Amino acid sequence: MRTKQLLTGLFLSTSLLALGQDEKLDAATTDKIRQEGLQRSQVMETAFYLTDVNGPRIQGPGYMNAANYAKGKLAGWGLQNAKLEAWGDWGKGWNVERCYFAMTAPYYKSMIAVPRAWSGSTNKLQTADILFITDSDTMALENYKGKLKNKVILLDQSYKVTPSFKADADRYTDDELQKMASAEAPRGGGQRMPGDSAMRRMMQTMRTRNVFNQKMRKMAKAEGAVGILNSTQNSKDGTLFVSGDYANAALGATPDDLADLSISAEDYMMLCRLMKANVPVKLEVDVKTKFFTDDIKGYNVLADIPGTDPKLKDEVVMLGAHLDSWHAATGATDNAAGSAVMMEAARILKAIGVKPRRTIRIALWSGEEQGLFGSRNYVTNHLVDATTNKLNKEGENVAAYFNVDNGTGKIRGIYLQGSEAAGPVFAQWLKPFNDLGATTVTIQNTGGTDHQSFDRYGIPGFQFIQDRIEYNTRTHHTNMDTYDHLQADDLKQAATVVASFVYNAAMRDQKIPAKPVAITQQSGR
Amino acid sequence: MRTKQLLTGLFLSTSLLALGQDEKLDAATTDKIRQEGLQRSQVMETAFYLTDVNGPRIQGPGYMNAANYAKGKLAGWGLQNAKLEAWGDWGKGWNVERCYFAMTAPYYKSMIAVPRAWSGSTNKLQTADILFITDSDTMALENYKGKLKNKVILLDQSYKVTPSFKADADRYTDDELQKMASAEAPRGGGQRMPGDSAMRRMMQTMRTRNVFNQKMRKMAKAEGAVGILNSTQNSKDGTLFVSGDYANAALGATPDDLADLSISAEDYMMLCRLMKANVPVKLEVDVKTKFFTDDIKGYNVLADIPGTDPKLKDEVVMLGAHLDSWHAATGATDNAAGSAVMMEAARILKAIGVKPRRTIRIALWSGEEQGLFGSRNYVTNHLVDATTNKLNKEGENVAAYFNVDNGTGKIRGIYLQGSEAAGPVFAQWLKPFNDLGATTVTIQNTGGTDHQSFDRYGIPGFQFIQDRIEYNTRTHHTNMDTYDHLQADDLKQAATVVASFVYNAAMRDQKIPAKPVAITQQSGR
Repeated sequence: MRTKQLLTGLFLSTSLLALGQDEKLDAATTDKIRQEGLQRSQVMETAFYLTDVNGPRIQGPGYMNAANYAKGKLAGWGLQNAKLEAWGDWGKGWNVERCYFAMTAPYYKSMIAVPRAWSGSTNKLQTADILFITDSDTMALENYKGKLKNKVILLDQSYKVTPSFKADADRYTDDELQKMASAEAPRGGGQRMPGDSAMRRMMQTMRTRNVFNQKMRKMAKAEGAVGILNSTQNSKDGTLFVSGDYANAALGATPDDLADLSISAEDYMMLCRLMKANVPVKLEVDVKTKFFTDDIKGYNVLADIPGTDPKLKDEVVMLGAHLDSWHAATGATDNAAGSAVMMEAARILKAIGVKPRRTIRIALWSGEEQGLFGSRNYVTNHLVDATTNKLNKEGENVAAYFNVDNGTGKIRGIYLQGSEAAGPVFAQWLKPFNDLGATTVTIQNTGGTDHQSFDRYGIPGFQFIQDRIEYNTRTHHTNMDTYDHLQADDLKQAATVVASFVYNAAMRDQKIPAKPVAITQQSGR
Repeated sequence: MRTKQLLTGLFLSTSLLALGQDEKLDAATTDKIRQEGLQRSQVMETAFYLTDVNGPRIQGPGYMNAANYAKGKLAGWGLQNAKLEAWGDWGKGWNVERCYFAMTAPYYKSMIAVPRAWSGSTNKLQTADILFITDSDTMALENYKGKLKNKVILLDQSYKVTPSFKADADRYTDDELQKMASAEAPRGGGQRMPGDSAMRRMMQTMRTRNVFNQKMRKMAKAEGAVGILNSTQNSKDGTLFVSGDYANAALGATPDDLADLSISAEDYMMLCRLMKANVPVKLEVDVKTKFFTDDIKGYNVLADIPGTDPKLKDEVVMLGAHLDSWHAATGATDNAAGSAVMMEAARILKAIGVKPRRTIRIALWSGEEQGLFGSRNYVTNHLVDATTNKLNKEGENVAAYFNVDNGTGKIRGIYLQGSEAAGPVFAQWLKPFNDLGATTVTIQNTGGTDHQSFDRYGIPGFQFIQDRIEYNTRTHHTNMDTYDHLQADDLKQAATVVASFVYNAAMRDQKIPAKPVAITQQSGR
C-alpha cells in the first residue's frame, strides 16, 4: 500500500441495504470455496515463497524472481495466458549486496541500518567521523563547504521516542464497523480521490524539504562524503520505516556515490546527543548496492480463467494486488499478503473447477509503491482510448476490479468507493461470510492503492476492509515486514471471501453497477 | 534487575496504616528536596553519561569507565570517601569489537544480531553454510559428528511471533495499587525469597537444557564451527533479548572460538523454514570480541555523606542500585536508571546541604546481573561475621537499605518485604509525594535485585514500586535498553522520593524497624 488509508465521509448517506434486489447466490459453490479456502489453503506456502524464499521485491531481480514464480504457480494451477507483461519503462533495478554500520568510538556498537532505496555504495569498509549539520537553512549549507570529505552526514533532528501505551495491534471493533457502515457518502459522490490529494500535499512538503537535501547531497557527492544518515519518528524498538527517493532509479540519474542509510530514532538521537556534548564519535560503514540496467521495463503478472458464456466471456472480472515491495524486509504484509491472497483465490476457483460466465483475470502489479505504475499503465495501455481519455471497448468490458492491499488482516467488509448501487449487492455477497467476521459495506473511499487506477476511469474498482493488526505500527514499509508477521487464519479467510466475490461477479447477469465518472487527470509514469 | 519481579501474598494481612505513630517529618527539608529534585534535576545528564557516552557496563572496561565516572561525580558533588572497592574475584572482562551477520543466499539480508555475553570470535569475516540440527536428544548429536566444520549451527526451534494486542507500556492503575496495598503478608513472614526459588527453578531448567548445548558446543569447538545461533520467543520487531552464559567469564574457562549469536525470532524462524524447504542458504559472520584478564576483580562504587550526630553517625542509611548492565545496549532502564536516580538523590541531599544524623552511603553494585555479586559480597565482606554467619556490629549499624532497579518508571510506593512494622513509617513518608503518584505501601516481596542481599541477613532492605512502562516488553535485557527509553519526569520524581526517604531514615530517632531473621544460605561468588 502506497500511503496511509484515508477516509472521507461528509454528506448524508442513504440506507444502502434497503436498495437491493435479491442476488442469485450459488450456495453449493460458495460452500466449495469455503471448504477449499479454509481447509486446503495454500496461501501460507505461496506467501513463504514470495517472502522468505524470494526476498524483497523492489524493481530488479527481486521483483522479477517473484513475478516469474507467480506466473509459474498460476500456470501450474491451470490458469490460461499466464505471463509477464511489460507496461513501459520503469527505470533501473536495484538491490543491496552488503550493509554494515557501526559506531567504534566512544565504544563499539553495531547499529541496525537499512540503505534507503536506490542508495549508492561506499565501495569498501570506510571509517568516518560525523559532520554534524545544525543548520536547516539551505543558504547556511555554505558554512559546511570543504568539510564533507570522508564524513558521514548527520542533520540535527529531534525525534521523540515514546513508549507505546496503545497496543501495536488491533482489530476493528463492532462499534468501528458500525460507524463505517453508517458513514455518509464521500464528498462529490466519490469522484474525489482523497488518497491522491493527500499524496500531492505530502509530495509538496517533501519537495520543499528536498531543496535543502538536494543541495546537501550535491555537496556530499562533490566533496566525497561517505554517507548520509536518516531516521523517522516512529522508527523505534528496532523497527525501521524505510523507503527511498526513486528519482535515483531514473535512467538518466547518476546514483550518489555514498550510503544513504536509515537508522533507528534511538541511534540517530544518540549520535546527535554525542555531537552536542562534543564526544568524539567514529563510525564504520560498508554499503554495497547494485543497479541493474539490462531491463528497465516494468512488468505486471497476468493470468486468466477464461469465461464460458458466449455472451459474457469478453467481459472480465479482475482481481489484483501489487506484488512489488519496499526492500527493508520481504514485504510480507505489503503486499505479499495481498498477492498471496489473490493467487490463492484464483487457485481456489481452479481447484473447485468453476466455469465462470465472464473471464476472470488476476493481475499482480509492479511499481505500486512509487505511484501505482503497474496498474495505471495497465489501465491506460489496455482500457483507455488515448485520444478521448475515456474507456475503450475493453475498458467497458471490465465488470469489476477487486484489490487487496491493507496488510495481513482478515476481510471485515468492502469500501464502495462512493458507488452506492454496489452496496446492496455486496451486502448480500458478504452474508455467507458474516460468521467469519466479514460483514460491513461502507460507502466510504479508501486510497493509496491500485483500485484507484480503475476507479478514476469509472471502472468499478474496490478495496476490501481488513483488520489492521500491526500494519501501521510494525510492518508497513518496515524492516519487520516479514513472514512471521503474517496471520495465517486471516489470509485464509481473505482468500475465501475474495474467491467468492470474484465468482459472484463473474456469474452475475449484470456487471457490478458503475457510478458516474469524472476523470481526474493523473500522469502515469 | 536480575529476574522478573515476583510477588507473593498468601496469608491474612493486618491493616498496616492503622499501626503507626506519627513520624516527625521535616517539611522544610522535604520542600527543598522537591525543589532541587524536580526543578534543578541532573538525573538525565547523569543517565546520558552512563549510557550514551559510556556504553554497555558489563564486567570489563565498560563497567570500569562507568564506575570511575560515578566515583568522580559523587566526589565532585561533595560526597566523602568516594571510591571503587574490590569485593573479590569476578572473572574476565569482555566486550564486543565487531558484529556483522548477514544472509547472502538465496538473497542478501543484513540481520540484527548481538553476540551473547562472553561469546568468542570468528577471527575474520567467514562465509558459512548452516548445519541444521533437528534432533533435540543429546545422544542423537552423534549423527552430526564430522559435519560441523565451517558451519553455523541452527537448532530446529519453534518461536511463535505474535502481534501485540496489549500495549507494550503501562502504568499501575489505581485498582492495581489498591490490590497491592491490601495484599496479604508473604508466606513465612517474608523470610522466603520467591525471587531466589524461582531463580533456582529457572537455573535447573537451564542446566537440563545445557547438557545438550554443552555437548553441541564441545563438538562445535572441536570441529571448527563458525557460530551458533540463538533466539527467544519475545525477541521480535527488532527488539532482541540477550544475556549470556557467564561460565565463559571464569578464569579457568577457555572461551569457545566461535560466535554465539542472538538473532530475532523472525530471522531464526525464517532460517528454519528455508532449511526445511531445502533452500540453500549462505551466511556471512564477522564477530570479534575481547576478553580482559588484567584485572579480574569486581568493584563496587561507594561514597558517603557522613553523619553528624555523635550517637548516630556510626549508623548508616544506604541507598543502592546496580551499575552493571548486560551488553546488547547501554542498560538504560536496567539499571542506569536506578544508578542515576540514586546518584541524583545523593546530589540533591548535598545540594541542599543536609546534615544527616546518620551516615548516608550510596553503593553502586557490579555483577548484579549474574547473581547480585557486588551487593552480596559487600554484605559478607563488611556486615557479616564469617564464623557465625550473622550480622556483625557494622551490619547491625545499617539502619536501612533502599534499592532502585525496576526500570524507568516513577515510584508508586514501596515493597515492605514482609516487614510489617515499617509500613506505617513509610506510609507517612510517602504522604508529601502522594501528589506525584507515590502512594502505596505493600507488605509484599519483590525479588531479583540487590535489596535481597541485605534482607536475607535481616537488614531492613527495600525496593520501590515503580511503574513498569515498557520494562518487560522492550527494555529489560534487550538491545533497546537505551537512553531514549528513559522517562525524564519519572526519574526526577524517583530521585526526589528516594532522597526524602533516605533523609528521613538518616534523621529518625530509631532505625527502621527490622523483622525477625532466618538466613537463607546462598553462596556469593
